[in-house]
Amino acid sequence: MAEPLFHRLVLIGIGHIGSSIARALHHAPGTVERLVICDASPAHLARAKELELGDEYVADPAEAVAGADGVILCTPVGSFAAIAEGIAPHLAPGCVLSDVGSTKQSVIRDVGPHVPEGVHFVPAHPLAGTEFSGPDAGLADLFKGRWCLISLPEGADEDAVEKIESLWAALGARTARMTAAHHDRVIAIVSHLPHLIAFTICGTADDLADETREEVLQFAASGFRDFTRIAASDPVMWRDIFINNKDALLEMFARFSEDAQSMARAVRWGDTGYIEDRINRSRKIRKSLIDIKQA
Amino acid sequence: MAEPLFHRLVLIGIGHIGSSIARALHHAPGTVERLVICDASPAHLARAKELELGDEYVADPAEAVAGADGVILCTPVGSFAAIAEGIAPHLAPGCVLSDVGSTKQSVIRDVGPHVPEGVHFVPAHPLAGTEFSGPDAGLADLFKGRWCLISLPEGADEDAVEKIESLWAALGARTARMTAAHHDRVIAIVSHLPHLIAFTICGTADDLADETREEVLQFAASGFRDFTRIAASDPVMWRDIFINNKDALLEMFARFSEDAQSMARAVRWGDTGYIEDRINRSRKIRKSLIDIKQA
Ligand SMILES: NC(=O)c1ccc[n+]([C@@H]2O[C@H](COP(=O)([O-])OP(=O)(O)OC[C@H]3O[C@@H](n4cnc5c(N)ncnc54)[C@H](OP(=O)(O)O)[C@@H]3O)[C@@H](O)[C@H]2O)c1
Ligand SMILES: NC(=O)c1ccc[n+]([C@@H]2O[C@H](COP(=O)([O-])OP(=O)(O)OC[C@H]3O[C@@H](n4cnc5c(N)ncnc54)[C@H](OP(=O)(O)O)[C@@H]3O)[C@@H](O)[C@H]2O)c1
Repeated sequence: MAEPLFHRLVLIGIGHIGSSIARALHHAPGTVERLVICDASPAHLARAKELELGDEYVADPAEAVAGADGVILCTPVGSFAAIAEGIAPHLAPGCVLSDVGSTKQSVIRDVGPHVPEGVHFVPAHPLAGTEFSGPDAGLADLFKGRWCLISLPEGADEDAVEKIESLWAALGARTARMTAAHHDRVIAIVSHLPHLIAFTICGTADDLADETREEVLQFAASGFRDFTRIAASDPVMWRDIFINNKDALLEMFARFSEDAQSMARAVRWGDTGYIEDRINRSRKIRKSLIDIKQA
Repeated sequence: MAEPLFHRLVLIGIGHIGSSIARALHHAPGTVERLVICDASPAHLARAKELELGDEYVADPAEAVAGADGVILCTPVGSFAAIAEGIAPHLAPGCVLSDVGSTKQSVIRDVGPHVPEGVHFVPAHPLAGTEFSGPDAGLADLFKGRWCLISLPEGADEDAVEKIESLWAALGARTARMTAAHHDRVIAIVSHLPHLIAFTICGTADDLADETREEVLQFAASGFRDFTRIAASDPVMWRDIFINNKDALLEMFARFSEDAQSMARAVRWGDTGYIEDRINRSRKIRKSLIDIKQA
């Protein structure tokens, strides 16, 4: 049998993403010899055990990482600095430290300074997920055919990077490398801004007079519904993402806001040419998505 | 056999909605004795004939409506005034004139004044549709289980209203009556504003630097994709809707805009309580949709 990628891999955080990794690993036998699961929530840890997601269940991250050759942070990005600080003294030399956080500059900023000499830090972000959370929400095929972006800090160890790339390949994902700054801008427009808009429009609807609000729900199928799926996502995870990708998110929001104001102005003044032009452009974008089979 | 609802029903406009009505009628035999199809586009008229959507195909609306006891306008709402003016002298007394337009105050404003004495005007709006258009895009079950809203002008004839309600019931839809002003506000937030946002964010993405734009497409699955489906909709139809529901749309946009600015401000200043509160509220809305099976 081939050598496993990791002898002792620790998942810190066994929610939607962590438990999806665990489940996917069950379908990739031999990739990891011993899977250790760690979570701050006793309920989630107990549930992970019930679901038989790993080989070992440890509440304390420092204890969990002892002797590990791989550690993946799968908690909300706002918790990374404290976790990294707590586990740093216990990481063995040669260990690969990675994560699944949705922001990458903040992760390098928060985790980077704590990484001990001889430990290899390989930040990653799988572009997959649903609006659900917790260990029951994991899916074995969540990463199948999806992208995992790798954003390397300076001086990253090539062998460690390839190990993380092989791990994601084993989980069914395709990997691509991208600077953290570029990652944060691209993800701000494809994911963080749509979530901000979705959260907002639900609130706008909720503020309407009672009668109208009821009808908003009743007639949601006319477009509103498409916007609400992602609005069901976890508040802590998204609070952390917004705060930790503030600059890129606010830049994309400012661009969107200017464009939306221009569209509203065209509606007010009956500038039909402008409106048709914008709609034609957005159809083209949709068509491109269909052409590249991403629709 | 029971008396048909209409002896001669004319559909003016045989695009997505018109051809869906025609197809649904094939599954409700006996509802209409003779279905007449009329369209300004010779190509669409020819295609409708090829698809055997009706019993008669007439290019000229004035000619088509002669002797009809039912007429439904299924063209973009911006074309209603001219069509109503053109057909008015040819409408037989007792004829029921209806429409499927997505705005209702503008339809009453544009069509109402042309309706001759003795002709019954019953504005309606089926809340069903996809992003596709044209006679090939029709679906026989498009209206099944969906709502059709009826917004009556003053002094509407009760028998005529019940005929239109029966027609929509035969097509599989549920009907509800609602004032035109209320209709326009509810639909502005559930449909028109989401479309305006979807058209806008596609344009915002399209304006990004080439490299980023390509990646937006490549990684669209992370949320952006959900927003682009409705952005593929027909430019003329949507131009007409925006212009003809300007007041309600701009009011809902202003509310949304204030809420989005507040969210952006909370992100800028790290107001985590505000962000979490908004996300929790939007989850509740999504949950309500799931509870009433509209998600
Ligand atoms: N969901 C997505 O679509 C998606 C996609 C790509 C990447 N990500 C990233 O993946 C990470 C996890 O997201 P998720 O969706 O898996 O969230 P989740 O389902 O809420 O899981 C997070 C888990 O981490 C636990 N946790 C929180 N703080 C902790 C700490 N300080 N120490 C140990 N455990 C802690 C949570 O317990 P409690 O619930 O008790 O706090 C929970 O069990 C986030 O960084 C997110 O940005 C998410
Ligand atoms: N699509 C939806 O989701 C939806 C849902 C509910 C209600 N509606 C309403 O339904 C109506 C039709 O929408 P649709 O989606 O069916 O659009 P569509 O597929 O574009 O069909 C409209 C048809 O009307 C023809 N037409 C345009 N102007 C005309 C005129 N002056 N006289 C005769 N025919 C004319 C068009 O021909 P050309 O293409 O050659 O112009 C086309 O064949 C609109 O008022 C819309 O607001 C749409």
